[in-house]
Amino acid sequence: MTGSPKPFSWPLRVYYQHTDAGGVVFHANYFSFMECSRTELLQSHGFDLRELARRDRVVVHSAQIAYHKPALLNDLLTVTAQVMRVGRVRLEFDQEVMRGEEVLASAQVSLACVSAQSYRPVAVPEAIRKKLEGLR
Amino acid sequence: MTGSPKPFSWPLRVYYQHTDAGGVVFHANYFSFMECSRTELLQSHGFDLRELARRDRVVVHSAQIAYHKPALLNDLLTVTAQVMRVGRVRLEFDQEVMRGEEVLASAQVSLACVSAQSYRPVAVPEAIRKKLEGLR
Amino acid sequence: MTGSPKPFSWPLRVYYQHTDAGGVVFHANYFSFMECSRTELLQSHGFDLRELARRDRVVVHSAQIAYHKPALLNDLLTVTAQVMRVGRVRLEFDQEVMRGEEVLASAQVSLACVSAQSYRPVAVPEAIRKKLEGLR
Amino acid sequence: MTGSPKPFSWPLRVYYQHTDAGGVVFHANYFSFMECSRTELLQSHGFDLRELARRDRVVVHSAQIAYHKPALLNDLLTVTAQVMRVGRVRLEFDQEVMRGEEVLASAQVSLACVSAQSYRPVAVPEAIRKKLEGLR
Repeated sequence: MTGSPKPFSWPLRVYYQHTDAGGVVFHANYFSFMECSRTELLQSHGFDLRELARRDRVVVHSAQIAYHKPALLNDLLTVTAQVMRVGRVRLEFDQEVMRGEEVLASAQVSLACVSAQSYRPVAVPEAIRKKLEGLR
Repeated sequence: MTGSPKPFSWPLRVYYQHTDAGGVVFHANYFSFMECSRTELLQSHGFDLRELARRDRVVVHSAQIAYHKPALLNDLLTVTAQVMRVGRVRLEFDQEVMRGEEVLASAQVSLACVSAQSYRPVAVPEAIRKKLEGLR
Repeated sequence: MTGSPKPFSWPLRVYYQHTDAGGVVFHANYFSFMECSRTELLQSHGFDLRELARRDRVVVHSAQIAYHKPALLNDLLTVTAQVMRVGRVRLEFDQEVMRGEEVLASAQVSLACVSAQSYRPVAVPEAIRKKLEGLR
Repeated sequence: MTGSPKPFSWPLRVYYQHTDAGGVVFHANYFSFMECSRTELLQSHGFDLRELARRDRVVVHSAQIAYHKPALLNDLLTVTAQVMRVGRVRLEFDQEVMRGEEVLASAQVSLACVSAQSYRPVAVPEAIRKKLEGLR
């Protein structure tokens, strides 16, 4: 039996701007951290978000998140991005925000493509689908 | 037949800092908008978050969100906050981000109380529970 | 002797997302607060930033700020925006972030207009200049 | 005559959350980028901001910035942090946000130390002053 491949992960440090008066990372900022990781995953496979954005835009369609432990100022985090499903109009990722071996937050993020002009849903570009299929 | 009471709602304008290069509100910022609405709901019932934060902190424990239509620069939004469940250690809200009658995003947000020192879960303060029970 | 007219001011509450682990508003967020006040000043005179942005964009060209006292979670602030100079290619504002009568931060912000396509400087639209001239 | 040492610089990618509906990095976010660079400079010399923050906090006392060219989605920036003056109660930095050889923004940032409890000014800790003196 072989294990699943290790998911893509991206390192991030927590700076003052990510934290709040509770002394922890503000809850919405985990979504920004996960955006970084997904962007770098695409980037590492040759997709430049600025190029993509000329015609279509990949947007978050829905998401769910559970917070387990707080991330703190100056923490060095790693944020994973694992492709779970590649559909014609949806891309699904599992993502975790980790500090060493501790999982601080875990999320499912579903992406869709929309037209940059009308914001109407469009099919995920074939090139992206093929590349991400290979990563599942 | 009696309708349910109208949920608390809070008006917000979309400024440049909320938007992104896609021309729409950045997805994580909807969570900030919902934080404003929950804070103002508590505030309108006499709870000052800074006072509360001295001992315990109300944090987001988990959340899910679906994005229906994008909010745009300069939009005047209203953000609702409806108490759905008041438990011993959890508070559950339904929230919507609206532009006029259009629902742009809908979310369920579950809050928990944690100790300001240890970040360990503690019971929701009785005063908050009683007040929010009355709002269901 | 007549005093100068009272500058435009805009109320804002400090939410968790504005604060940092130091327990105070993160320094860069004062610039976001001042953006709100300038936007509402223009809005109150009939300028819709989204309309404006179709052709040209009003951008910050340079700024300076001094921080006097920290703004805290849940503070109710007022943010002023006073037109100081209306030039052909620059608009200059004095802005203050206040809590009651206390000045927490004071800034000078210089705006310029750029083409939405090329980001090249363009003249400030006549309609904006005329209106703002009247506010000095 | 020898030239001045090359200033510390830190690489950063521009993600959607840094940009605004004008298609460029939102002006206040340059201050967040400069915060990252200063933090990493201190970190690289053995100062952990979280440790420091237990007693005193290093805060921005005043700043000025000039924006020359916009940073765009997906740009790879470098952000410099050069120590210009180390006083008893003030630390002064020159900082630039660059894309390759282009200077997109240049700033002077003056820091002060304040007590974590009272926010009153305190002397810059001797250990930080000595280290930063060596970097001028």
